[in-house]
Amino acid sequence: MAPKINGTGVMPEDTRICVVMVGLPARGKSYIAQRAQRYLKWLSIPAKTFNVGNYRRKDAPHPSADFFDTNNAEGERQRRAAANAAVTDMIQWFKTGGVVGILDATNSTKERRKWVLERLSKEGIEVLFVESKCDDEELIMANIRDVKTTSPDYQGQDPEQAALDFRERIRHYEKVYKSINDDNDEDHLTYLKIMNVGKKVFINRIQDYLQSRVVYFLMNLHIRPRSVWLSRHGESEYNLEGRIGGDSLLSHRGEEYARKLPELVRQSVGSDRPLTVWTSTLKRTIATARHLPKHYNQLQWKALDELDAGVCDGLTYQEIADQYPEDFQARDEDKYNYRYRGGESYRDVVIRLEPIIMELERSENILIISHQAVIRCIYAYFMQKPQEESPWVPVPLHTLIKLTPRAYDTLVEKYDAKIKAVSTWRGKGSTAKHEDPTPEGGI
Amino acid sequence: MAPKINGTGVMPEDTRICVVMVGLPARGKSYIAQRAQRYLKWLSIPAKTFNVGNYRRKDAPHPSADFFDTNNAEGERQRRAAANAAVTDMIQWFKTGGVVGILDATNSTKERRKWVLERLSKEGIEVLFVESKCDDEELIMANIRDVKTTSPDYQGQDPEQAALDFRERIRHYEKVYKSINDDNDEDHLTYLKIMNVGKKVFINRIQDYLQSRVVYFLMNLHIRPRSVWLSRHGESEYNLEGRIGGDSLLSHRGEEYARKLPELVRQSVGSDRPLTVWTSTLKRTIATARHLPKHYNQLQWKALDELDAGVCDGLTYQEIADQYPEDFQARDEDKYNYRYRGGESYRDVVIRLEPIIMELERSENILIISHQAVIRCIYAYFMQKPQEESPWVPVPLHTLIKLTPRAYDTLVEKYDAKIKAVSTWRGKGSTAKHEDPTPEGGI
Repeated sequence: MAPKINGTGVMPEDTRICVVMVGLPARGKSYIAQRAQRYLKWLSIPAKTFNVGNYRRKDAPHPSADFFDTNNAEGERQRRAAANAAVTDMIQWFKTGGVVGILDATNSTKERRKWVLERLSKEGIEVLFVESKCDDEELIMANIRDVKTTSPDYQGQDPEQAALDFRERIRHYEKVYKSINDDNDEDHLTYLKIMNVGKKVFINRIQDYLQSRVVYFLMNLHIRPRSVWLSRHGESEYNLEGRIGGDSLLSHRGEEYARKLPELVRQSVGSDRPLTVWTSTLKRTIATARHLPKHYNQLQWKALDELDAGVCDGLTYQEIADQYPEDFQARDEDKYNYRYRGGESYRDVVIRLEPIIMELERSENILIISHQAVIRCIYAYFMQKPQEESPWVPVPLHTLIKLTPRAYDTLVEKYDAKIKAVSTWRGKGSTAKHEDPTPEGGI
Repeated sequence: MAPKINGTGVMPEDTRICVVMVGLPARGKSYIAQRAQRYLKWLSIPAKTFNVGNYRRKDAPHPSADFFDTNNAEGERQRRAAANAAVTDMIQWFKTGGVVGILDATNSTKERRKWVLERLSKEGIEVLFVESKCDDEELIMANIRDVKTTSPDYQGQDPEQAALDFRERIRHYEKVYKSINDDNDEDHLTYLKIMNVGKKVFINRIQDYLQSRVVYFLMNLHIRPRSVWLSRHGESEYNLEGRIGGDSLLSHRGEEYARKLPELVRQSVGSDRPLTVWTSTLKRTIATARHLPKHYNQLQWKALDELDAGVCDGLTYQEIADQYPEDFQARDEDKYNYRYRGGESYRDVVIRLEPIIMELERSENILIISHQAVIRCIYAYFMQKPQEESPWVPVPLHTLIKLTPRAYDTLVEKYDAKIKAVSTWRGKGSTAKHEDPTPEGGI
């Protein structure tokens, strides 16, 4: 068998998993599905969500609650056909290299789960059921509010009417809903049951590494409101000279940014609640964090250090192009995968950032002060940037970025310190020391 | 608050956890406790196990089963006193910087768990109950066989007699045993319940990162028999020149080792069952794995690359001593913590190896072909080598090492390829290119 380069330990060639969501409507299933997909794709694991509702809407775009009444034979037939179409498409997708397919539907009866298991097992696909249970009325209400305003099922309808109808729909599901293995006859299933967004977790028959990674990630998710702040270090002496890497100190303007950062943070937090500050172990990020309030907890992570440029560390782009012309070209051709001699690629950085992402998912308000390539990778995670784009994203110096995760996307706000700094962005093929980013795609 | 260098994301200054084992005798509690302690200490998290049996043995060194009869008031009093002494010592230990204390005892009644929780909560210590449940008769019998031959309780006694008595002891416990939250009145406890060594896992109210790390590690443990094979790459061209780091090819003798490795592996595996081979991404380990049978799955991990020597990469020790005399000395003074300029320390290597260890715990038979410093760190994990020793352990070239984890230790076997190679070991203060290791402490 050909050796496979693999930093995460995940061995996709051996494994194809279908994550089958289970649960009543308004239990956060789509939220969980979307988060899992984002995490896996960021780790270069081909993942895709198949939402049965989207298939059903082709035939029944705006069904009222009685469509979901179990006594409604025609509704039942259409819903079954939608599930079948979604699973058929997913199996097709696995044949083209898919690794983790996510079936986003209620799958709330034993019969439906049995059917899904049989269809997928026949194709050699592992099935991991993920049930979200919730009896916290407040959480359910928040989900209902969300659905009535965002679901295409209720597009253009009166929100109050929509909420009533949706509650009626949930009641129809409740009549037939059976939590996994509640009757002790589904003990053969591989499943993860999450109660009240992680307060309790039940795990049954997890088999391999990839399943265990997915489970561990989902265990760590929470939905408490929070933001993540990102900032590059202040302008450094190396930035002024157009040199990459190194461990230089801040320029005068960089120092100015460090002094201004507490005010920017205060502005964007909007209150006095403390943040936890994570820096890299390099002087320029530590110096940038120096003036933040003393009661902020600070932590240095080696995993937040800048992409290691190996033999090119400390050079300008012109020097790299002169001394390593082939490398310079190879990097421009595939910047995500290009690994500096004796150093790292963006792909390597993502792998070492994985524990950071895991910890970010667990945490509440965190301010990360790090470096261009690292911030690009973290930004790509939250914004679902494709790999071919993320290494080219302009991340300006002297700018605080606030990311606020929402149900289906992430809100980005920018706080410009209005302190001049050089640009360290570089276009494809360019060896300029400082050049203005092209307009599209910046943070 | 002073910034804290921290690669693992664990924030010990905030957290003190008591892991309270729960379960009948012969359910692998001590095994789990010992594994958790080894893992945490390897990650520099102060961890210590307090075994209540050891305290009880001070008063009752060889008790027969009726000592454990719940109607035996004197036995009951002594066992309670032992638990109290263990908890008191643990609280004392927390005050001197302990982070994760492990209380190894049955804690099989609700009353006892309530008492433990109250004692520790009063001191601000988090309590994580870890219950091992097992109804697999074969596993229990294997544990009983183990106890009757290794437990100090039965020292010098007839093994068959001991097994009978031990079964009787278990029956006494069974009379009062209550699995955590089986009556739904322990829902406020933070706990992990592991059934049949990981087949089912139940997690309740896990609160913080350190708890979640412990839980994830314990979820991944298994007890199926297996071995781990370690080998350095064959002798490299840089080894011949006494240079560190780099990405050189194998010497002629190194090539010879690569050709001989399949035979060594066959010898030590003792059968034809396939191994999975993990190498680093560097040429010398990949070349060393080249002649292994085609049906062995091979995987390259960046995390298995050699310790990054930063600015010293490619130098000889003499050149390092000449060009960076202060660094050379600082490294000898604290080799575990010394981080090469622009490179790594042993501590950094351990942090990036953490996912490798996690995956090793999940896996069965793995052959790792890597580098001196990396193998030292993995070896230190299995052999519980202290940090001040592990960076000095001689790991000879052209030698296959087989580690077989057992209940309370790890068996080491060595297979010498009998192909000459230079020594790359270096004593404190030495700048010799090749020197023989001092006799003590080698693998």
